[in-house]
Amino acid sequence: KRLRDYGIEIGVLKTGKYNAITDVDGVKVGHTTLIIGDSIRTGVTAILPHSENIFQFKVPAAIYIGNGFGKLAGYSQVKELGNIETPIILTNTLSVPVASDALITYTLKENENVRSVNSVVGETNDGWLNDIRGRHIKSEHVLSAIQNAQGGRIEEGNVGAGTGTICFQYKGGIGTSSRIIPEEFGGYTVGVLVQSNFGGVLEINGAPIAKELDNYPSQFKYDVDGSCMMVVMTDAPLDSRNLERLAKRAIMGLAKTGGIASNGSGDYVIAVSTAKKNRIPHSSDSLFNETKVLRNGAITPLFLATIEATEEAIINSLFAAETMTGRNGHTINSIPKDKVLNILKKYNKIRVD
Amino acid sequence: KRLRDYGIEIGVLKTGKYNAITDVDGVKVGHTTLIIGDSIRTGVTAILPHSENIFQFKVPAAIYIGNGFGKLAGYSQVKELGNIETPIILTNTLSVPVASDALITYTLKENENVRSVNSVVGETNDGWLNDIRGRHIKSEHVLSAIQNAQGGRIEEGNVGAGTGTICFQYKGGIGTSSRIIPEEFGGYTVGVLVQSNFGGVLEINGAPIAKELDNYPSQFKYDVDGSCMMVVMTDAPLDSRNLERLAKRAIMGLAKTGGIASNGSGDYVIAVSTAKKNRIPHSSDSLFNETKVLRNGAITPLFLATIEATEEAIINSLFAAETMTGRNGHTINSIPKDKVLNILKKYNKIRVD
Amino acid sequence: KRLRDYGIEIGVLKTGKYNAITDVDGVKVGHTTLIIGDSIRTGVTAILPHSENIFQFKVPAAIYIGNGFGKLAGYSQVKELGNIETPIILTNTLSVPVASDALITYTLKENENVRSVNSVVGETNDGWLNDIRGRHIKSEHVLSAIQNAQGGRIEEGNVGAGTGTICFQYKGGIGTSSRIIPEEFGGYTVGVLVQSNFGGVLEINGAPIAKELDNYPSQFKYDVDGSCMMVVMTDAPLDSRNLERLAKRAIMGLAKTGGIASNGSGDYVIAVSTAKKNRIPHSSDSLFNETKVLRNGAITPLFLATIEATEEAIINSLFAAETMTGRNGHTINSIPKDKVLNILKKYNKIRVD
Amino acid sequence: KRLRDYGIEIGVLKTGKYNAITDVDGVKVGHTTLIIGDSIRTGVTAILPHSENIFQFKVPAAIYIGNGFGKLAGYSQVKELGNIETPIILTNTLSVPVASDALITYTLKENENVRSVNSVVGETNDGWLNDIRGRHIKSEHVLSAIQNAQGGRIEEGNVGAGTGTICFQYKGGIGTSSRIIPEEFGGYTVGVLVQSNFGGVLEINGAPIAKELDNYPSQFKYDVDGSCMMVVMTDAPLDSRNLERLAKRAIMGLAKTGGIASNGSGDYVIAVSTAKKNRIPHSSDSLFNETKVLRNGAITPLFLATIEATEEAIINSLFAAETMTGRNGHTINSIPKDKVLNILKKYNKIRVD
Repeated sequence: KRLRDYGIEIGVLKTGKYNAITDVDGVKVGHTTLIIGDSIRTGVTAILPHSENIFQFKVPAAIYIGNGFGKLAGYSQVKELGNIETPIILTNTLSVPVASDALITYTLKENENVRSVNSVVGETNDGWLNDIRGRHIKSEHVLSAIQNAQGGRIEEGNVGAGTGTICFQYKGGIGTSSRIIPEEFGGYTVGVLVQSNFGGVLEINGAPIAKELDNYPSQFKYDVDGSCMMVVMTDAPLDSRNLERLAKRAIMGLAKTGGIASNGSGDYVIAVSTAKKNRIPHSSDSLFNETKVLRNGAITPLFLATIEATEEAIINSLFAAETMTGRNGHTINSIPKDKVLNILKKYNKIRVD
Repeated sequence: KRLRDYGIEIGVLKTGKYNAITDVDGVKVGHTTLIIGDSIRTGVTAILPHSENIFQFKVPAAIYIGNGFGKLAGYSQVKELGNIETPIILTNTLSVPVASDALITYTLKENENVRSVNSVVGETNDGWLNDIRGRHIKSEHVLSAIQNAQGGRIEEGNVGAGTGTICFQYKGGIGTSSRIIPEEFGGYTVGVLVQSNFGGVLEINGAPIAKELDNYPSQFKYDVDGSCMMVVMTDAPLDSRNLERLAKRAIMGLAKTGGIASNGSGDYVIAVSTAKKNRIPHSSDSLFNETKVLRNGAITPLFLATIEATEEAIINSLFAAETMTGRNGHTINSIPKDKVLNILKKYNKIRVD
Repeated sequence: KRLRDYGIEIGVLKTGKYNAITDVDGVKVGHTTLIIGDSIRTGVTAILPHSENIFQFKVPAAIYIGNGFGKLAGYSQVKELGNIETPIILTNTLSVPVASDALITYTLKENENVRSVNSVVGETNDGWLNDIRGRHIKSEHVLSAIQNAQGGRIEEGNVGAGTGTICFQYKGGIGTSSRIIPEEFGGYTVGVLVQSNFGGVLEINGAPIAKELDNYPSQFKYDVDGSCMMVVMTDAPLDSRNLERLAKRAIMGLAKTGGIASNGSGDYVIAVSTAKKNRIPHSSDSLFNETKVLRNGAITPLFLATIEATEEAIINSLFAAETMTGRNGHTINSIPKDKVLNILKKYNKIRVD
Repeated sequence: KRLRDYGIEIGVLKTGKYNAITDVDGVKVGHTTLIIGDSIRTGVTAILPHSENIFQFKVPAAIYIGNGFGKLAGYSQVKELGNIETPIILTNTLSVPVASDALITYTLKENENVRSVNSVVGETNDGWLNDIRGRHIKSEHVLSAIQNAQGGRIEEGNVGAGTGTICFQYKGGIGTSSRIIPEEFGGYTVGVLVQSNFGGVLEINGAPIAKELDNYPSQFKYDVDGSCMMVVMTDAPLDSRNLERLAKRAIMGLAKTGGIASNGSGDYVIAVSTAKKNRIPHSSDSLFNETKVLRNGAITPLFLATIEATEEAIINSLFAAETMTGRNGHTINSIPKDKVLNILKKYNKIRVD
């Protein structure tokens, strides 16, 4: 059961059909999950903005660095050129290179003569539960995540890049959510997917979970090395400048869960517009791109949608993740759902129909 | 009565003595309030990091642009040189030039031979209640705010630069709050002062005020041109790089009040370290500055402090501001405190001792 | 006589008709020059991207901060929204506020009900020759520069904002130049106007003037507080992202004159696209802007054009400026043209037809 | 013979002993060069800021993105934390992942328990001469470059990461140079190493080589995909903010060679301070770092040093590189030294003693 199935509603906007990033038309997600032996607890998540050749039909994009203690690959070219030309891969910290390399393999295979590829790979550190130093992610795991990507319902929790992550001292993982803005503003969808692996003072829909469970960083120790990767997709026609603004709002959603973007956190947001007409052909006979983009004055609803969907995606990751034992016998418990639901009741945060 | 007097506590860290930016040793705040006739509802707020000659003893500083639809003066030099050399002035949008000019007057007077001054002035737009086009702020109002600056208790609400502002469709204004981090991390104080003038979906300490009062931007119209200026002071010894990181966290505090940093919002954070030993002399016989600064790994508690103090400063501004009628007979009501307190009770957000 | 009249040609691209920023269709420039008594040597230069109401028809724009020791007004909103909505004003350091205020006056007068204006004002410090502390620039000087703006031939040297500036220890001032890119790349024009007030090791078209004249900063003293404002206009259809890239190339042109962007230098580039179809209406019934912009792959020729035109504009400012005596009897000589021409001959840098 | 051996002197500052990045005390450089069969023409260059464990004793650092069409790894963490914790690796575009991975291997081996490493890897594209799609760089090539690193004289030209690069249509490669600033400013050394692979309108010490050889991009075709990696080391005690400013000046040096930072260019500058006292211990019992850094006002001489050393390093790369035939029989000629020397004579750019 997801958060909403318990009667908890975050925000004021309605969700898409699946309440997932895949509510944005054409977006696909694939996971490779590695749970092997006592100490391998890691994986790969691939997010594809569309099903055609992404290198040939690049998508307008931006990356916002909330806190840059992280190893994300691909930042500078996205900033300079305003687009993304590969699937987006999430994995563990020490596997960014192998994932970047796999994206090169993927792109070279699909595109003869191409000799330059800007791989976009994000990461968080699953080294408490996972033998991260073993670098168990291989190229085939990445390619397989891309291969398996599909639309519709998405697995959350201990899957893909979220297999070994920890969030607010509980088991974190992959989470997703979406919002639809009102028709009069275009009726666009914003979908968010997160890989949650960070700390702070947990709140759920405004209820002070960490305070009630006496589980917050009075020592400010546990949260170091945490991180959160956030991927935002929208079918709204936005250029890279306004996508960067959208991306900045995802951090505001993270803030509402009690995240504090600690020193050791790598908090990045990758935002993409999937609007078909604005795709950027790799080659063109024309000197020009013709685009139709939302005016600055029309994007505020998308900001709210991003904030809400990010907040909910993070909480969804906590609700979906199950207790996990891994490296050195370390165990991280899932969020204590019964207690949490009781706290939510205490704070009147569960809708009673 | 301030928020805490009603038994509402935001966050997990303790406040300073005054729960104000002036809890940071040496910081002073001064207001000039203009409420004249039917349509002048504006003012100036000055924040001084210390009581000596600021131009001669500059302070390490950073400015973070949360959303840049605003007219803040002084950004690029602070970014380049990592310091601030004037008092910080807040006022209305169209009075930034006159305030910048007044800071020049102030600095030239105190410093013979100086021929270059980087005025730092922030603003929000009070043009609904105030005859902003009349540009009623004059140089003497700015100088007087500096002159009158003092430590200790700070006036909040409809004073100074907050005289005519609007926040979440209620009367906004000046608000302030502070936090002290644990001794083992240095025991430093973070103080925040805000000029609140923005919109979104109001929450107070996690309680869904806007939803309950059915007062949120389903039309996304009311919030355009809103803005929030945030000033963060700390006695923690931080260099400009880490002050910029601190500044970014203030936006996370704003997010927790339901702010969404709409397109038309000018959301800026000015962060300053007042640590006496790190002041930067304007002139020096030495080629060097010797500094003792917090390591990256030691700043996370300050991040949490900034988030909490910003959230509370904003809510304090709402609680302090009173109903105001101004230009063209426009009236903006104060937040309906009785209703709000009832909602806070409903959501169990008031401590009952 | 301008540089080219002496047979000196910088770069490989051809110039526009006037070899001036006004070669970009519709661009106008106006100066107000204040040479009064013994010590007032300052002024204002206004650059207008088009002749219609700029607030109502904003232009895509970007500002690049080469070195931020300066007081430029308007940066953050241009960065956030990607456009400029006022004439661009250049003046002296301490007159930025009065010029910003004048732009507000100008805009309010032309636009009823407008309550928010982002003035864009750049500056350099003319305080050696000019009684800058006297702040002699008044609102009417700014408005008059706008009023007088016109196309065609532009006055260079000791006019407008260049009246009291110093460049490489010689009299600097206003300079301008333009380049046209080949037809097959669109045949667009790039025009640059500079306010030169900086130091370094002067080279002209590759000839080592400073070395030959034994006039370079072996003590690194003279160049402190220098600065260079550069305004780049083009009729090429560029969005703000690519305009920022264009702006960055102007610094490369400055580098070729021997400029070093010293610590005390405020080196800013304001880049604007005047392409009529991409103007951004202040109000619109549509949610969308439709634009036709140059592809990333098509902008390289514009980069070269910007570099060449900036280099030449700076040298043009030196050739046009005449010896000036000002405040405290300070005299700054014009560049010693005879000696310089001899050096240029020695280095074979003068075309002999 | 290097440039200076022909009597050509760039700039006004004196060089260090080796006129190389290794003039900065403790800096080492190592190359792995792969010239195999008909089509493998690539390699790796490693630059080490000091000889101790770099992860345990990080160095203050900054990365400046001149033009971001490139795949550099490690940007965001350097920006956020202000330091570098690995050797710096340069290689070809498609080998960034394998080099990043090798740096992880290197760091994990030297540091037990470390689970997070920020690899810094730059690249340019050698795909014209090299079978870049074959991805022939392996981990051992990277580790071997680190292993072989040494101080003193550095090999230039077709070595390491410069094996297959092209610059101004001639064979490019590795080049290096250094400058020493006057004693009164600290007597510090700035060393630069470049991997030259870009285009433009070549000038050497101000002489118009490209114009004379009729070899410039009138079609703006050849330079696409060019790039220049620049590494700047200094023993001057600078914090990351001022290192970023230093880094920006390297682009000004590139500009003086006629480089234009074309759209397809990945022009990055990595700047590091090796000042021993400012190294940042990975672990510390203290909350603080104590540093002694140059004041803003003292860094201008280092700017000039950076500009001069970058310009000369690029030209050195051209003078050292020899004609190379590679993939598909492509041949790139070395710069025609006789012709070039004649042109330099024509323009009086060769010192005759």
